[in-house]
Amino acid sequence: MHQFDEATAIEVVEAGARYAGAVTEDWSISGIPNGGYLTAIAMRAMAQAAPHPDPFSVTTHYLRPARPGPVMIDVAVVRAGRRHATVEATISQDGEGVARVLGLYGDFSAFAGPTLVTGTPPQLPDPDSLPSSLTIPGLPAIARAFDLRLDPDSTQGILGRPDGRPEVAGWVRFADGREPDTLSLVTVADALPPAILNLLTARWVPTLELTVHFRGRPAPGWLRARFATRFLVEGILEEDGDVWDSSGRLVALSRQLALVQESHGETPS
Amino acid sequence: MHQFDEATAIEVVEAGARYAGAVTEDWSISGIPNGGYLTAIAMRAMAQAAPHPDPFSVTTHYLRPARPGPVMIDVAVVRAGRRHATVEATISQDGEGVARVLGLYGDFSAFAGPTLVTGTPPQLPDPDSLPSSLTIPGLPAIARAFDLRLDPDSTQGILGRPDGRPEVAGWVRFADGREPDTLSLVTVADALPPAILNLLTARWVPTLELTVHFRGRPAPGWLRARFATRFLVEGILEEDGDVWDSSGRLVALSRQLALVQESHGETPS
Repeated sequence: MHQFDEATAIEVVEAGARYAGAVTEDWSISGIPNGGYLTAIAMRAMAQAAPHPDPFSVTTHYLRPARPGPVMIDVAVVRAGRRHATVEATISQDGEGVARVLGLYGDFSAFAGPTLVTGTPPQLPDPDSLPSSLTIPGLPAIARAFDLRLDPDSTQGILGRPDGRPEVAGWVRFADGREPDTLSLVTVADALPPAILNLLTARWVPTLELTVHFRGRPAPGWLRARFATRFLVEGILEEDGDVWDSSGRLVALSRQLALVQESHGETPS
Repeated sequence: MHQFDEATAIEVVEAGARYAGAVTEDWSISGIPNGGYLTAIAMRAMAQAAPHPDPFSVTTHYLRPARPGPVMIDVAVVRAGRRHATVEATISQDGEGVARVLGLYGDFSAFAGPTLVTGTPPQLPDPDSLPSSLTIPGLPAIARAFDLRLDPDSTQGILGRPDGRPEVAGWVRFADGREPDTLSLVTVADALPPAILNLLTARWVPTLELTVHFRGRPAPGWLRARFATRFLVEGILEEDGDVWDSSGRLVALSRQLALVQESHGETPS
């Protein structure tokens, strides 16, 4: 069993309604479990309740910082339609809500219609030419669970040489060779260092709300991802991302609302 | 009382929990009430329950097409924190859920931090030089409730001369002179013709999910808005928007997931 599947595994407490899981420390940044990872745990439970196989859109509101340890996930189908369904989930720890998730599920293979794409994937150096996060000491746990190969042009500021461009791009795959799927895309969408760190120093950039649109099931192999921030206003920012699979298809769009904070200890609420 | 305030007015059924309202025909497209307008009705009720004054992020899942007529709005505070709170709402008609909304509320005036902006507003001709939607016959009801002054360069395809650029931009204000506020921004974010219509003909582009980030309280006067689609895949698309106030400040970012459909009659579910 792969590390990500172990870390998002759930057990049935009440079928279609309540599941138990556990937050591991392997997908953390400075000891705080990553928001995209938490959402993946919720999506494990939502997939059990959803009458359609694929997530189309998932929004998470982070209510409190989570801690490594047991979680409960309560799920409910808000509306089940013929072509898609809305499902909600609440992750809680010690009886307190940690995240509220609202998701739209459908079936990619049941949709047919026109395709017109004007967006293009990030142009990146070959992954074999880039340093792997697995070989760089001192990075957060999540950079050991994912093999990240970031474009050095997009991390100058993060490495202490601000280059004025709030964009981060790179290659991503699981360190243990697990292939990507829609579930893992939500974690990829929150796994790179915040693009705003190319412009300023912040101790913590907690996510308040994360929405991911899933646009297809990813092909095996490397994913390419690019994240950018255009508007930091009074300490509040958006980060927009797109994730592409090895066949050159867009597979996810993400947008999050986050805060720039000077210290880890501050809670986002 | 202005038209928009009448059309979003609610009455208390149970304070902080249940409100009654009515969907008018004035904010419709082909007789179907606009999704951004429905969300504004929900936000009237959410504002009654929220312990903080400003919406920061609101996500709506559209469950069924709404009809003009009475609605009930059930609201609940998911989590109330010191700095922000998550609130949910369900709009229903005849006991059936029409929309589920999840919103983050805070207080813009209580946030302070760095501001760094790299995005720029759309460059548009002077609104006085552009035709007003109020003077163009045959447009949907919503184009009589808003005074829309669209950039003709961005509507060539919509007018039957596809120009290959899936972007629509223009000026927006209420037809009756009501000034913009955060509540109205969510309706503006869904009020322009879909950008994808510059590339293809579709009878209906129903919104499945709409997320709006509110980034400030708008100044009085014209709003500028720009919407673009990069990825239409098998009939499913995203539309990203940004809305700017008369002082040149970004006040909202929107993203929706929508479908291209050939006929009005099809329901999105």
